[in-house]
Amino acid sequence: MKDIQNLKDTRNVDIQKVGIKHIDVPLIIQRKNKSNQVVSAKARVNVSLPRDYKGTHMSRFVEVLNEWQHKNLLGIDIKGCLEKIITNLDAQSGELQFKFKYFLEKCSPVTNLPAQMAYDCSFEGRINSDGYKFILGVEVPVTTLCPCSKEISDNGAHNQRAFITVRVSYDEDKHIWLEDLISLIESCASCPVYPLLKREDEKYVTEKAWDNPKFVEDVLRDVVVKLREYPVVNEFEVECEAFESIHNHSAWAYQHESKL
Amino acid sequence: MKDIQNLKDTRNVDIQKVGIKHIDVPLIIQRKNKSNQVVSAKARVNVSLPRDYKGTHMSRFVEVLNEWQHKNLLGIDIKGCLEKIITNLDAQSGELQFKFKYFLEKCSPVTNLPAQMAYDCSFEGRINSDGYKFILGVEVPVTTLCPCSKEISDNGAHNQRAFITVRVSYDEDKHIWLEDLISLIESCASCPVYPLLKREDEKYVTEKAWDNPKFVEDVLRDVVVKLREYPVVNEFEVECEAFESIHNHSAWAYQHESKL
Amino acid sequence: MKDIQNLKDTRNVDIQKVGIKHIDVPLIIQRKNKSNQVVSAKARVNVSLPRDYKGTHMSRFVEVLNEWQHKNLLGIDIKGCLEKIITNLDAQSGELQFKFKYFLEKCSPVTNLPAQMAYDCSFEGRINSDGYKFILGVEVPVTTLCPCSKEISDNGAHNQRAFITVRVSYDEDKHIWLEDLISLIESCASCPVYPLLKREDEKYVTEKAWDNPKFVEDVLRDVVVKLREYPVVNEFEVECEAFESIHNHSAWAYQHESKL
Amino acid sequence: MKDIQNLKDTRNVDIQKVGIKHIDVPLIIQRKNKSNQVVSAKARVNVSLPRDYKGTHMSRFVEVLNEWQHKNLLGIDIKGCLEKIITNLDAQSGELQFKFKYFLEKCSPVTNLPAQMAYDCSFEGRINSDGYKFILGVEVPVTTLCPCSKEISDNGAHNQRAFITVRVSYDEDKHIWLEDLISLIESCASCPVYPLLKREDEKYVTEKAWDNPKFVEDVLRDVVVKLREYPVVNEFEVECEAFESIHNHSAWAYQHESKL
Repeated sequence: MKDIQNLKDTRNVDIQKVGIKHIDVPLIIQRKNKSNQVVSAKARVNVSLPRDYKGTHMSRFVEVLNEWQHKNLLGIDIKGCLEKIITNLDAQSGELQFKFKYFLEKCSPVTNLPAQMAYDCSFEGRINSDGYKFILGVEVPVTTLCPCSKEISDNGAHNQRAFITVRVSYDEDKHIWLEDLISLIESCASCPVYPLLKREDEKYVTEKAWDNPKFVEDVLRDVVVKLREYPVVNEFEVECEAFESIHNHSAWAYQHESKL
Repeated sequence: MKDIQNLKDTRNVDIQKVGIKHIDVPLIIQRKNKSNQVVSAKARVNVSLPRDYKGTHMSRFVEVLNEWQHKNLLGIDIKGCLEKIITNLDAQSGELQFKFKYFLEKCSPVTNLPAQMAYDCSFEGRINSDGYKFILGVEVPVTTLCPCSKEISDNGAHNQRAFITVRVSYDEDKHIWLEDLISLIESCASCPVYPLLKREDEKYVTEKAWDNPKFVEDVLRDVVVKLREYPVVNEFEVECEAFESIHNHSAWAYQHESKL
Repeated sequence: MKDIQNLKDTRNVDIQKVGIKHIDVPLIIQRKNKSNQVVSAKARVNVSLPRDYKGTHMSRFVEVLNEWQHKNLLGIDIKGCLEKIITNLDAQSGELQFKFKYFLEKCSPVTNLPAQMAYDCSFEGRINSDGYKFILGVEVPVTTLCPCSKEISDNGAHNQRAFITVRVSYDEDKHIWLEDLISLIESCASCPVYPLLKREDEKYVTEKAWDNPKFVEDVLRDVVVKLREYPVVNEFEVECEAFESIHNHSAWAYQHESKL
Repeated sequence: MKDIQNLKDTRNVDIQKVGIKHIDVPLIIQRKNKSNQVVSAKARVNVSLPRDYKGTHMSRFVEVLNEWQHKNLLGIDIKGCLEKIITNLDAQSGELQFKFKYFLEKCSPVTNLPAQMAYDCSFEGRINSDGYKFILGVEVPVTTLCPCSKEISDNGAHNQRAFITVRVSYDEDKHIWLEDLISLIESCASCPVYPLLKREDEKYVTEKAWDNPKFVEDVLRDVVVKLREYPVVNEFEVECEAFESIHNHSAWAYQHESKL
C-alpha cells in the first residue's frame, strides 16, 4: 500500500507545526498528598515536518497518547510522552498540550463543609533546539469587588465573578503543584469562590470581599508580585477577566514576564 | 441528472423535521420609531417530509432565505418566508428561526451619554395543522443583588450579571416591539446593565441594585406577573440565570405559561 | 440569622423550576462488563417552589450532589439522588441532569488496534405527579456520505462528520447500556468514526462509507426504525446533524416518538 | 467624587495590557467596489498602565468605540481609533481588535446563482514604541479531500470541511481587501464551499475536490507559497484545521513567517 505521506515535496516549505487537535483522552494526574485523579483531557499535539516530506503520519500521535493514558502524570512526564512522539514521527521539534478539569475538595470557610470544585488546568510541553520547556496553566474563578464603586456609593459595591488565568514555566528538575498555584492565586482576589456555602459562610464571603476591594489591575499586580518572588518560576503569564455585574462586557488585564 | 431525493422510500417514517441549521444570513429588522437595522442572523429552517420521499431538497431553503434578506422584517413577515418555504418544498409543516444580535442605543442613567448595547434576540415561526405561531425571543443581561447576602452581612451584598430570557407568542394581527419587551424585562431586575457608565452613573447603579435586592426567584416572578398582565401575550417562557459572584455555578429559574 | 428564603411571598406564582446550573461534579458511572469509569459531569438540578415561599435553599443541591459522587451510577440511581433532593428541599417535583464525556475503547476495524474514544452522554431524571421518568442520552459522531453526490458525479462523493443524538426513556425496572445504544446508532451511519486508523483501516472506512451512502433523512429513519423495534424503549428523540463538507452550514433532521 | 483610579500605586508593576473585552459594537466596513457593510463586531481594546497609577479609566474605551461606529472602516482607520484611545487614556501603547462576520455574495459555480456567505474576519491594530502595526485576519471554510484515502481505496476518498485561518500584516500605506485575501485562500483548498448548490453545482464541487486531493500540510504549503510571493505582505500566520470525517478530532497545521 503506497505511503503518500512519504512522497517528496518540492514546495520548499519546512512546516513548523502539524498534528492533531481536539482529541479526547483520559489521563491520570498525580495529586498533592493524595490518591491520583482520573481526568478527561482535550489534547493538541504537533511536530515539525521538513520540506522534503509531503505529510506526517497522524495515527502515530494517537498511538502514543493512548500509551500514556495509564501513567500517573506530572509536568515532567509530559517530556517523556513528547520525546516518544518526536521519535515516532522522526521530527526535530514538537509540542503537546492537555487541557482538563481538575477537582479539588474545598471546604466552606466557616461551617467547614467539604465539596468538590473543578478548575480548568493545562499541561503543556515543548521540545525544540533550545531544549525542553514545560508550562503549567490554571484558570481560577474568584470574586472581585470594585474599589471605585465602594468609595463613591452610599451603600454596597458592585462585585462579580472573575477568572484569573496563570501559566508558569520552571526548570525540569523542579515541580509546582496545581494545589499550591491555585492557593497563591486565590489569595490575590477580593475573595475566593466556593462550591458550597451555608448562610454563615455567605456572610463571611460577602464581608471578606467588601474588605478587599480590587480592580482587575490590583488582582493582576498582586499575582505578578507573588510570581516574581516565587523562586522556582522562570517565566509567567497572568490574565484577569472580570465579568462586570454592571456591564455586558469584561474588564481585563494581562502581563507576561520572564526572569531568564 | 437523476433526482435521488425523489426516490420512493419504504421505511414507513414520516419525518417531522428536516432542513438546514447554522446558516448565516444578513437580515433587515424594523426598529420602533427609527430607521431599520441590518443584523447578522444565524438561521435554522426545516419542513416535514412524508414517508414516501427519500429526501428533501436542501438548496431550496437557501434560495428562499436569500430572497427574504432584502425585506424589512417584523414578526409577521416570518410567516411569508415560511409559507414560501413550505410551498417550494411541497411540505405540510415547517419552522423557521433567526437568532441575531440587535443593537439599541442606551443612555447612561445620570450623565445621559448614549452608547450601543447588543441584545441576543430571536424570531421564530411555525406552521402546522394548527395554523401559524410566532415566537419573539430576547435575552437581557441585568444585575441581580442577593437579598440574603444583604440581610445577613454587616457590609455589602454579593451581586452579579444575570441573564433574563423571555420568549412570547401572540396573535398574528398583533405586534410587540423588541424595545418594549426589553424595557419590561429590565424593570424586573435589581438594576439594568449599561454599555457606558461614568462615575456618577456607577454610583447610581450600585445604589439602585442595593435598594432592589432580588433572587432569581424574585426576578422570575416579577417578569411572570408582568407577562400575565400583558394583554397581547398568549403564551410565554421566562428563564433567569445568575452567574453567582460567590460560586462557579449559576442560580437558575424557569417558567412556562399559556393563557389559551 | 434571618432566613430570607422562608419569607412569605404574595405574588401568587408557583415556580415550576428553580435550582442550579453549570456545576461541575465528578461521578462514577457503571460500565457494561467492566470496571467503573470516573467522569467529569456538568450538572443541572432544580425543584418546584410553591407560591408562598420567597426562595429555595440553593446550598442543599450541592450537598446532595456531593453525597452522590461516591456511588456507582446507573440510570436507576438518578432516582435516589433526585428523591433526596426533593425531600431536602421540601418540594413537589424536581429534575436532575448530568452531562459527561464517556470513554469507550474502540478497536480499528482491520488492524484491530485499541484506542479510547469519548462520547457526549447524559443521564436525566424527572419526578413529578406522574411519577419518575429517566432519559438516557448520547451524541455519536459518525461519517455520512451523500447518495446524491455519489450518483451524479463521475468520481467521488462528498462526505463529512455528522452527529447522531439520541435520547431514550424506558421503565424504571429496565436498563439500557450506553455501550449498546452507541452500537445501535453507529450501525445506522455510512460508517462509524474511529480514534485510531492505520492505512488498511483508512481504506476500509473509505470504502465502507462509499458502499453505504446516506442522507441525514436516511440516518434518521434507520435509527427510528431500530428504536421502534427496541422492546424496552418507551419514548425517543433522534437528531442527525451533518457538517456538510460542501457548505458552511449543516443538514439536519429530527424525530420524536412515544409508544405510550 | 474621588478618583480611585488616580491613586498612587506602590507595587512597582507597569501593567502591559489593561482594558475591556467581549464588547459588542456595530461597525461599517468598506467593501471592494461596493456599498459599505454594517457588521456586528466583538471588540477587545487595551492600553498600558504605568506603575504609578492604581487603575485605568475603562469608560473611555467605550466612548471612543462609540464615536468610531459611524466611520467607514478600513485597516488604516483602526490607527485613528487606537491613537484616540491612547490619547484619551494617556497611555504609551495600546491594542484594538474587532472580530466580525463579513458577508460576500458568492455565486454557485455552474448555475451561477448568487447567495450570501459569511466569513469570520478580524481587524487588529497595535501601537507601541516600534510604531503602528495592522493585522488583517480571516477564517475561510473550504473542502479538503484526503490524498492518502483516494490513493489506497478502490472507491471514493474521505473529505471534510476545513478552516483555513490567515492573519497578515502590511505597511500602513498599503491595503489588502478581504475579498482578495479570501479568493487567494480558497484557491489553495481541494474546493471552496458555497452557500447554495444545485445538482449541477454539486457534481462540479464533488469532482473538483476529487481532482485536487490535499492534506492540511498541502493546503498550508500552498497558502504559504502564495503569501511569500504576495508583495504587500510583511508577515503572516497560516493555520489549517480539517474536521476529519473519519475521526472525531481534527488534523491541524500552522506556520508563522516574517519577511522583515
